[in-house]
Amino acid sequence: MKSIKIKSTINFQKLFSMWILAFVLVLSIQAQRPAAPRVPRIVSPEISADNKVTFRLFSKEATSVILTGDWMAAGVSQPLVKNDTGLWTTTTAPLKPEFYNYYFTVNGVRAIDPSNPKILRDGSRYSSALFIPGTESDGYAIKDVPHGTVAKVWYNSTSLKLYRRMYVYTPAGYEDTSNKYPVLYLLHGGGGDEDQWTTLARATYIMDNLIAGGKAKPMIVVMTNGNANQTSAVTDWPDVTDKNISGSGGGMTEEFPNSIVKDVIPYVEKHYRVLANKENRAIAGLSMGALQTQITSVNNPGMFDYTGVFSIGIQTEFGDLTTRLTKAYDENLDKIKKSGYKVFFVGVGKDDFVYEGVQLLRKKLDEHSFKYIYRETSGGHTWANWRIYLSEFAPMLFK
Amino acid sequence: MKSIKIKSTINFQKLFSMWILAFVLVLSIQAQRPAAPRVPRIVSPEISADNKVTFRLFSKEATSVILTGDWMAAGVSQPLVKNDTGLWTTTTAPLKPEFYNYYFTVNGVRAIDPSNPKILRDGSRYSSALFIPGTESDGYAIKDVPHGTVAKVWYNSTSLKLYRRMYVYTPAGYEDTSNKYPVLYLLHGGGGDEDQWTTLARATYIMDNLIAGGKAKPMIVVMTNGNANQTSAVTDWPDVTDKNISGSGGGMTEEFPNSIVKDVIPYVEKHYRVLANKENRAIAGLSMGALQTQITSVNNPGMFDYTGVFSIGIQTEFGDLTTRLTKAYDENLDKIKKSGYKVFFVGVGKDDFVYEGVQLLRKKLDEHSFKYIYRETSGGHTWANWRIYLSEFAPMLFK
Repeated sequence: MKSIKIKSTINFQKLFSMWILAFVLVLSIQAQRPAAPRVPRIVSPEISADNKVTFRLFSKEATSVILTGDWMAAGVSQPLVKNDTGLWTTTTAPLKPEFYNYYFTVNGVRAIDPSNPKILRDGSRYSSALFIPGTESDGYAIKDVPHGTVAKVWYNSTSLKLYRRMYVYTPAGYEDTSNKYPVLYLLHGGGGDEDQWTTLARATYIMDNLIAGGKAKPMIVVMTNGNANQTSAVTDWPDVTDKNISGSGGGMTEEFPNSIVKDVIPYVEKHYRVLANKENRAIAGLSMGALQTQITSVNNPGMFDYTGVFSIGIQTEFGDLTTRLTKAYDENLDKIKKSGYKVFFVGVGKDDFVYEGVQLLRKKLDEHSFKYIYRETSGGHTWANWRIYLSEFAPMLFK
Repeated sequence: MKSIKIKSTINFQKLFSMWILAFVLVLSIQAQRPAAPRVPRIVSPEISADNKVTFRLFSKEATSVILTGDWMAAGVSQPLVKNDTGLWTTTTAPLKPEFYNYYFTVNGVRAIDPSNPKILRDGSRYSSALFIPGTESDGYAIKDVPHGTVAKVWYNSTSLKLYRRMYVYTPAGYEDTSNKYPVLYLLHGGGGDEDQWTTLARATYIMDNLIAGGKAKPMIVVMTNGNANQTSAVTDWPDVTDKNISGSGGGMTEEFPNSIVKDVIPYVEKHYRVLANKENRAIAGLSMGALQTQITSVNNPGMFDYTGVFSIGIQTEFGDLTTRLTKAYDENLDKIKKSGYKVFFVGVGKDDFVYEGVQLLRKKLDEHSFKYIYRETSGGHTWANWRIYLSEFAPMLFK
């Protein structure tokens, strides 16, 4: 914008900037939103060249500010130190490139970092997001590549008797062709909902990057809500709770797996341009979603050429559900072999609490000479691992 | 689920529940997410039968907790009071049914309510959401009615030289017909982005309710990002900032209005089933978006039969931009009359700081004997008013 003089002494550009500032300020106030406490402009988090991260928070009144981040061991946290202006600061040791989350505890209250606009929800709890760029995190960085469309879609689940929501990712270019696409059904874990893969796992950015790099085929990715008694993520629950709504849960039965086959797949294959055959149908899930994946895939021979089981196996703790799953494996693995399949992927972290169950799953597959790909990573039941498994599984699909 | 006995003394249902609980807990811990401070289960906010609202927060360590809500006058806030267990509480006077937001200030730090999973973002600041049901807020309640699909769509803006994001709402039923639909282009205000109409204004739920009730025609609603130098909301900015990204702003020029005509409308009319004529094209915006709406509509006679100008007019403070807008009015109003149009809607609150500018706009329209609908509400530059204007404007469209 050019600076022009008006009424001889007024710099218009300056006036204009001031007006904009006033405008935004007044907007805030007039929108019945009292101004937040006046704090200096703070940068937090700040990543140094050697990947140390500095966190800052301003408060003269606070007497205790603690940082808790998911790079720390369970139960560990790190205090911030206050200087005489009221600025609280702490710096970490160098962190591995990764997508982390963290929060402050301010005089006993959990708080997101007010200086960081990127946040994450896990169930009903919010944290602030921290992305450390580097080779290890490059695959799920938000980049300047073509992005797919992410749609929040409502569908009727006749089998669950619920009007429900799911996310449908259509790859970049979907709208510009009349091509039909293969579909990956991607199931979240316990305590989560249909948001989880897109936020904590960055699934859509992983897919954007893999597809842009020619590493994965363009595909539709359907991310459902696996809580069989829930319409949607809590963020979109009706304001006035009615009978068609409930808390999370209801994911540890066959109900949701059945509804994938009866409601979700038919909806997707009717409403999107889909290659509707087993060669172009994949299913994968993490933790609770990996249990649902097994139930869905193994009970429906000839439906999926690709199955991804991330971080759960045949867990003895599930009692009757496990008995039925084991029976399904025994009855159907030969049928699946007969109908043909391409990839059965099993991934688990060395330190994962479900590790033994995953070994029981491997034993079961071996018993039936059922070929599968086994991927053992370091670490435990973590988003870091689920991002890795998706990043490795998706390139195997539909080839 | 039936309760069955296993190993004679174990109640399976109880075991199962415990396992689920352990599962979720272990998930939290193993996901390298240290547990939050152990706090009792708290209900906050709680709305009483007479619409008083009680807010609660637990902290033994805090010494000052203050509530700030957008129902309060600017600068006003309300302290919470601590009891001897560490529970902080305060109750408001009865509140009018409305969609509010609020936050706590805990020892000087702004914090969302940890007990409330519904939050709102305005720019880079987060608040907790509070919906008080009642006649006045019924139009934008989240209800058990058919919901449209809300898609986050990326498009190339040739004129702005940016790959950018917008939201596209397709009404319930869009996917089930081959019908073509009219389109409303809906523009956000200063400091906001493409999220704003869907979150703070609840535009998609307003449309769901109006359409389900037969009050508005099914239509596509396109919600753009009006900051001409921004790719998307900050939440989806690239992790590693590059040249194609910038802060908000760049909305107070003709650049974005030009890109609506050159890039947005062509994209939408190519990729969606659209009735692509002026009879089926509407544009509306709030505040900065209302300025952009005027610029777009008045500079393009014969493009829109419906124009909605919410809470801005001909503001003398905008200097040269206002001069050009005024000139456009003088040159084009007769052309618009000649080409034909249906509704030119102007809405403003009695206490709005842009009130005088809106009266100048009315004067200009009157000068040219240009028919318009004027709606004056109580209050100021508020989301409450913008929800009202959208709720009244949408039913006038495409009839």
